[in-house]
Formats: sequence, structure tokens, C-alpha cells
Amino acid sequence: MRYNNLDKTAVFRRLTEAANAYRGFDFRRKLDAARVAACSVPIADTLVYNWAAKKVDDDIVALLRELAGEQELTAKYRALLDGEVMNTGEKRKVLHQLLRGQLGKDVVSDGKNIGEFYKKELERFSAFAEDVRGGKVKGASGKKFSYAAQIGIGGSDLGPRALYIALENWALKEGVRPNIKAKFISNVDPDDAAAVLSSVPLDETLFILVSKSGTTQETLTNELFVKDKLKKAGLDASRHFVAVTSETSPLAHNGAYLDSFYIDDFIGGRYSSSSGVGGVVLSLAFGPAVFKEFLSGAHEADRNALEPDVRKNAAMLDALIGVWERSFLGLPYTAVLPYSQALSRFPAHLQQLDMESNGKRVNRSGEPVSCPAGPVVFGEPGTNGQHSFYQLLHQGTDIVPLQFIGFNDSQLDDDVVVEGSTSMTKLKANLAAQIVAFAKGQDDANPNKQFPGGRPSSLIYGKRLTPKALGALLAHFENKVMFQGFIWNLNSFDQEGVQLGKILTKKVLSGNSGDDALDAYSKLLGI
Amino acid sequence: MRYNNLDKTAVFRRLTEAANAYRGFDFRRKLDAARVAACSVPIADTLVYNWAAKKVDDDIVALLRELAGEQELTAKYRALLDGEVMNTGEKRKVLHQLLRGQLGKDVVSDGKNIGEFYKKELERFSAFAEDVRGGKVKGASGKKFSYAAQIGIGGSDLGPRALYIALENWALKEGVRPNIKAKFISNVDPDDAAAVLSSVPLDETLFILVSKSGTTQETLTNELFVKDKLKKAGLDASRHFVAVTSETSPLAHNGAYLDSFYIDDFIGGRYSSSSGVGGVVLSLAFGPAVFKEFLSGAHEADRNALEPDVRKNAAMLDALIGVWERSFLGLPYTAVLPYSQALSRFPAHLQQLDMESNGKRVNRSGEPVSCPAGPVVFGEPGTNGQHSFYQLLHQGTDIVPLQFIGFNDSQLDDDVVVEGSTSMTKLKANLAAQIVAFAKGQDDANPNKQFPGGRPSSLIYGKRLTPKALGALLAHFENKVMFQGFIWNLNSFDQEGVQLGKILTKKVLSGNSGDDALDAYSKLLGI
Repeated sequence: MRYNNLDKTAVFRRLTEAANAYRGFDFRRKLDAARVAACSVPIADTLVYNWAAKKVDDDIVALLRELAGEQELTAKYRALLDGEVMNTGEKRKVLHQLLRGQLGKDVVSDGKNIGEFYKKELERFSAFAEDVRGGKVKGASGKKFSYAAQIGIGGSDLGPRALYIALENWALKEGVRPNIKAKFISNVDPDDAAAVLSSVPLDETLFILVSKSGTTQETLTNELFVKDKLKKAGLDASRHFVAVTSETSPLAHNGAYLDSFYIDDFIGGRYSSSSGVGGVVLSLAFGPAVFKEFLSGAHEADRNALEPDVRKNAAMLDALIGVWERSFLGLPYTAVLPYSQALSRFPAHLQQLDMESNGKRVNRSGEPVSCPAGPVVFGEPGTNGQHSFYQLLHQGTDIVPLQFIGFNDSQLDDDVVVEGSTSMTKLKANLAAQIVAFAKGQDDANPNKQFPGGRPSSLIYGKRLTPKALGALLAHFENKVMFQGFIWNLNSFDQEGVQLGKILTKKVLSGNSGDDALDAYSKLLGI
Repeated sequence: MRYNNLDKTAVFRRLTEAANAYRGFDFRRKLDAARVAACSVPIADTLVYNWAAKKVDDDIVALLRELAGEQELTAKYRALLDGEVMNTGEKRKVLHQLLRGQLGKDVVSDGKNIGEFYKKELERFSAFAEDVRGGKVKGASGKKFSYAAQIGIGGSDLGPRALYIALENWALKEGVRPNIKAKFISNVDPDDAAAVLSSVPLDETLFILVSKSGTTQETLTNELFVKDKLKKAGLDASRHFVAVTSETSPLAHNGAYLDSFYIDDFIGGRYSSSSGVGGVVLSLAFGPAVFKEFLSGAHEADRNALEPDVRKNAAMLDALIGVWERSFLGLPYTAVLPYSQALSRFPAHLQQLDMESNGKRVNRSGEPVSCPAGPVVFGEPGTNGQHSFYQLLHQGTDIVPLQFIGFNDSQLDDDVVVEGSTSMTKLKANLAAQIVAFAKGQDDANPNKQFPGGRPSSLIYGKRLTPKALGALLAHFENKVMFQGFIWNLNSFDQEGVQLGKILTKKVLSGNSGDDALDAYSKLLGI
């Protein structure tokens, strides 16, 4: 397989030239009903990607197709599925797709079939969740668990939390019972754990300790914070804790926990929502069948990402267009704008997924990347954002590419008709209106009321945000980020950039930082 | 007064030259204890701004001081305080500082003393809040109110919500009673209102309807959503609703509400947290005395922002350094990183404050601005962000300026000692470590483990996040954004960029959009 930096590809120069010629792309003339209809690509049964309002026409798609070919995107994805070591820095396979179903060869490591291992763990925590939900496993005081509180940070927090929030209303509507509520403790700020603990009945709360290495400072500190409270309440902590970790961690096979569920080094933190990291809490909250629906939606999207024709491969096309915007049009950010309050924390998850994966300045071989790579990602739900930062998006000095997400139906199906339309219709009308407003703009004699337009966006849409659609949505972005890593020739699966802060923190805590500026900052903060 | 675009100032060329020379600024040599000690500037009694880790030395500060003089920042701020029309597009005064105390002349409009009007409203809603908290005002079923649910969007939501979350733990610790919990309904997505309503006892909930114009689509729709539910529960809605609006709005002097509290056109939405928009809900939740403490902290910061020496004026210096980074070093974003879980939604408020104020491409006279203006603002609390997007911040291809916030003490003072240090000490050690890691970086033979450093940050710090410190923090950023608007010669107080979307939405809802692409998008979304 070839591993070339983007600017070493044969098509690079032509894409650069096209970008220079393309600044005047005319949405007012080109964005019409025919184009909208022609630019839909299925992500899965439940979800569609539409790129009509992207600054891309057939010529650009043809060049991007060449780029996909030159960078061997499909072959690299297949190699990843087949268990090749794609996390080059840490010399690890990358197998989060295998959590959702097998698309490549059997992956064997140290004589162990990894797919079987993942399946076994899924079944183990599914059974455990049923036991808790059915009241077979109870708290130390004999009460049923009514709360599941996850203790984890980064990938052990953002994805699972975003997914839980995304399905909370759906489960209410579907009458999923029992109603076990999830809470999340992440920050080492003691106010985080203290506030969560003040909001739950301790004797009805099951804590899920999540750390792959079993050494995460914040998580272990919060574990002891919670155990201290359980002890003071006279509750046996070992009956209120389960662990999700790797088999080689200090948390594994440890009598301090009711049970432990395992992942391995082939599941990166930000890609771990499909494992026990997301699965235990979601199965406890909504039941294992719901979590399996979620996995099946993700698996569908993974399968569609194998499609060799980029025009039919939503994740690949989204990735290519993103690189076009970042490395050729020179736009350093992307806003994710879900028109769904249920997805309120989904942008925070994507922020980690994207920025931690592709926020790199050296390629997979440790040489400098020679183009701008991963963008800054941010976002809030619409319509809220319209009354906040959209001013800059519409009329700022710079152009921010946009990713909209929307659904036909609400989750709770509880609505009101005001002035002839439901809230849901208003929500969708706003979404459609924004796409066109950003693309086409509007002239006005008053320059302050003029909208330049030419601001590109894509739309991911589906009928309703169900567990299956949510799985497809998550996998779509995982696969997009993976393809972009291949295009930029990055290792999207390590995160060395988090290490230096950890080292310096330990130095401060040891009382010997070796840096007088660091000591001075510590002093300002009262350490 | 002179109103020149930034690039028309005499100092512009010298700043541009300095920026070109400055790319090699050497933090490893320059950032030491003496510099950290020398770069602290008080914002208020409770809060300090430190710029030691910014790419700025005495020469640059001298040029920025010239810029402040040329753009007449202090004079413009004084003119604003004295009631000059600074919102040029809408021909309005800008008087949010007056909500916190008077620093200029008496402001009179249509024969009315505006300062007196603001004071009267503050006292009116303070008395109302006491009546509710004391049980004198009860719900329709005779029960005391235990929840206050704010219905508003944008400035009527983000600031008040961020401030409420910021003080929730503090109030718990201080034993503030009664404990009236606040909820917020913002999105027109019906799942937002439905989910909030399913989480409160309707007969114990007081709704605060907030819309300056009284015509905000989302807010009026949600009002009717809620009233429908109250009616179905047999509760008289007029006994469960108060309004915060302008005196000319349809919501004013209206028997449909228990009472109405007023603001006027001189308070912009994103600057309205210090008015009844934030004051009613915060006074209900924590008592009027707490809200007045908050105002006094903000007033202190407003007063300090009058300091003519930029080296002693935190808001002005922060603003100047931000323009230096945006318009001279060419950095298009800023990350806000509070090491305080209580500030979890503060970045979302700043996102509106900054991006809606300065995300403009024409100046206050309607001519194009000739430099990049307002940056993209995003952020999440630390240490959470360290396990998420910090990878890109440390090792991405681009440099993102950072604004850290931290405190000496936690809010709840409930902590645990693990491996010799408290959680709070760990939190602060992480913060100090990050500043130095970003600035100084670290060499490594392995390029993937190398940290280039040179990534600038500032630190706002204080003893504890109290109401007073929170007021100072909010006002600091409001004043920073105001000064930046003066430097860029923008009108930071209008938001014409939100209009086009509203117009197109109405067209969709009327069934006659006049644009076939818009119809096609509507169809995809099932309208």
C-alpha cells in the first residue's frame, strides 16, 4: 500500500488549481431542486447524507475520486478491518468496527479471535444489565438500582454521555422500563463528583468505572471520592461498582468490583462507545436490546463505507469534501449543527473524535504533514445556535463549513400547533431556510443587511432519531474521520499530544516541577 | 471622535511588521517566574487577568497602547456610558453597564432617567422573588413554587443558564434556602419543552417568559406548548407565568401574566444577563441579595475598564492582545477553557457574546472591514478538554489562542485526598501544567512525541467562584468584546445576520417559499 502525504499525490496540483478557480462558485445559479435531489447518498437505511450545498461540482468530484484512488481509501479501510496494524505509533490494530459486526477476515491476536472476544463481552454485559434491570443484582442495602453513574473522562465520557442524552427522550416515548437514569462524573474538579452525588440516592446507584488502562488520574481520584461517600453511608462499595477496562489493567479480575467487562488495546478511547465503555451504561439505562439496535445501525454504516464508488459512499464523500475545504479552500474549522435537542452533546463528542484523531502535525511515519490537517470542530443545537453564533457564520469575515443534522419526526411526538404549524415543522423550516440562506445569501442596499452567501453546508437527515439511526450517525463520523486520516496520511488512532501535560502535572504534584514559571503559576492558583 | 478601520490607523503598519518578526517569540527563554509575577492585572477585587503566556513583550504592549489611543477606546467607552448612540445600525444607546451601577452622566431618554428605571425594575423583581421564595405568591393549586422554568432563546437563555449552573453548587454549600431549582426551555424542537415538563411538578413551577420584542418565534411557541399542558392539568396559566420584556411588547401590561418586568432597547439580548432577563430567574433561585452581589462584581469590573493605562486595564489589554492574535498573527479562533465544572456552559455564552457581537464584515458605517474581525470561540471545561480536543491544540498544524480560567478553592469544599493531594490541587496542577506545556513545548527524538510549544494563553484566576467573582468574569468578557469592536470599528451591538433565516423560515411555513431548492430541502425533511 502507498502512504503518501496529500501534497505528494498526482492530483494535488489540479485540486489546488481548481480551488483557486472555485472561489466564485455560484450557489444562486447552481443550487436548485434538481441538485438537491441528485446529491443524496444513503449512510444506512435510517440516514442520508446530502451535499447539494457544498462547493463541489462534477469536476471536483472527479478529482476527489482520483484522490480517493491514489490514497487507496477503500484498500486501507479493508486492511484496517482485516486487522492490519493501522495505529502505527502504538503498533496496534484498530478494531472498533468489529464491535458492531464482522466485515473483514477473522482477526486473531495472540491466538485469540478478537471478534469472538468482543461478542462474548457484549453478551456478558448484556446479561449483567438484565440482572440489574430485573432486580436480581441489587445494592448493598437490598434496594434495586435506579441510577447508573459512569465515572470516566474523554472517550469514556463524551461519547457515552452524548448517546445517553440522545436516547433519553426516545426511551421515555417508547415506554422502556425500568427507567434507570444515567449520570456522569468526569472532571477531577471535586465539584463535579460532589454535585452528581448530591443528586442521586447512593444506595440505589450503581457506579461504572471506565478506564482502559486503569490508571487515569481523574477517574481513579473520582472512584475514591465516591467510595469514601459509600463508606460513610455504610454501603459496601464492592456491591456498587462495576469496571470497564482492559484485561491487563489493575482494575481487571479484581474483587473490589461486582464484575468487570473488557476491551483491549485495539479500541481507542474516542472510538469506544460501541464497546462496554458505552454499552454497559446504555444497556443498563435502556436494556441490551436497544444497545444492540444501536450497534446494528452502526454496522450498516460501516458496510456502506466499503462502497468503492465515492458518489455512493457517504462517509468517504463527506471526508473528501472536508479535505477539499480544509486543505484546498483553506477553511480551518467546521461547525456541527444538529436540529435536535437530543443531540445537544453530540458536537462535544465529535470535537474529540475529530480533533484528537486528526489534530496532528506529523504523518504516520513521523514526518511533517505538509498541508493543514484536522480542523477545529464546534457546534450547538439549532435553532439555539441561530440566536447565538450564526451571526458570524452568516456575516463574519471568514467562511465556516457547516454540517447540519435533522429529522422528520420528533422523539417524544408531543407537540403543539401555533399559527398553523407544529413546533417540529417550525424546527425543520428553520433548518431548510438556514441551508439556503447560507448558500445563496441576499442582496440589500444596506451593506449591514447584505448576506454574501457562498457558505457551504451538508445535511444529514433521517426519519427519526432512533437507536439505529444514532448508531449510523456515530459510525458515519468515525468513518469520515478515518478516511480523512488516510487522505492526510496521519495516524488517526493515537494521541501523543495529551502526554506532556500529564508529565508536568505530576511534577507539580511531586513538589519539584523544575520550572520556575510553572511554580509561579502554581502559586497564583494557591497550590 | 475618530472612527477609523483598524488598517487606517497609523500604528497598523508597525504592528504588521512586528507580527512578521514575532513568529519566533521564544517562550522557553522568556516565560519565567518574574514574567508571571509581572503580568497580573486585577479585573476586580475577586479576579485577576494574567497575560504572561501571551506572545507579547514590552515593545508590542507599547504599540498596542498606541492603538488603544488612536482608536480612543476609553473615550468611546465613556461615550457609551454617557448614553451616546453606539448601536449605530439600530440607532440605540448601549446601557447594559448601567444595570450594574452608574459610571457616567445621567442618561435620559424621552424624559425618562434610564438608570432610575433600571433600578426600579431591579427592586420590583427583587420584591417579587422574595414573595415567591417566602410563599406569599403561590401556584394555582395553592402550592409553593419549587421550580422556576425560563422560556427564552439566545441571550434570554445562554447567559442566564450559564450563570445559574455556575452558582448552583455555590448556593448548595452556602445553604441558600429555599432551594428553588431553575430549568430552561429554549429550542423550538418540541422534545426540549416536553422533556423539561416531564422533569418538573407542573403545579409547583413558575414559568418566566423572556422576549424583549415579545415576538420571538421559538419562545412564543414554547409558551403555548406549556400553557396547553397547564390547561390540561387544570391549572390557571396566568398564575404560573411572569414575563420579562420591553414595555412596548405585546407581553407588557398583560393580564395573562402574574407580573411583567421590563427592559428596554438599550439592553442587547447577549448583554442582558444583568437585567431581569438573568435577574428574575437568579433572584428566584438564589434570592435577590445574591443577584445584587453578582451585579456589584460586574460593576467593579466595569469601573476598572475605565483605567486609562492599558497595563492596568484587564479588559482593554485582553481585547488588544486578542486583536493582535486575530488581525496580526492571523489566528482565526479562541478556545475558552475554564478549570471549573461550574462554568461548563460559560463558553457557550461567550460564544454568543463574542461571535454575535464581532462576527461582522462591515464596519459601523456599513463599509467593509479590511481586516479579519471577530474569531470563532469554543470551549469546554478542563480537565475534560485535555482528554478531548487538546491533542489538536498541542500538536495540530495550526495555533489556537487559549483563555484559561481557574480558582484557588472549589465551590462545595467537599474533597478527597488521593496519593497525597486533593482533587482540587490536582485540578490546579493540571491547569498550571497546561499553560507551561502549551507555551514551552518539549523536544523529543520521536517527532510524534515532540511538542512545538509557542502556543499562547492567558489565565483569569480568583479565590473562589462566588456571585461577585462571576459578575466580574461576565463583565470582563463583555467589556473585552466591546473594546475589540471599537478597535475593529464595528457595531458590536446589532445582529442583522440573524434576519435572513427568519424571513426564509416564514416563507417555508407560508407554503410559498419562492425557491425550488428550499422546497426540495423542505421535502427531504418531510415538511
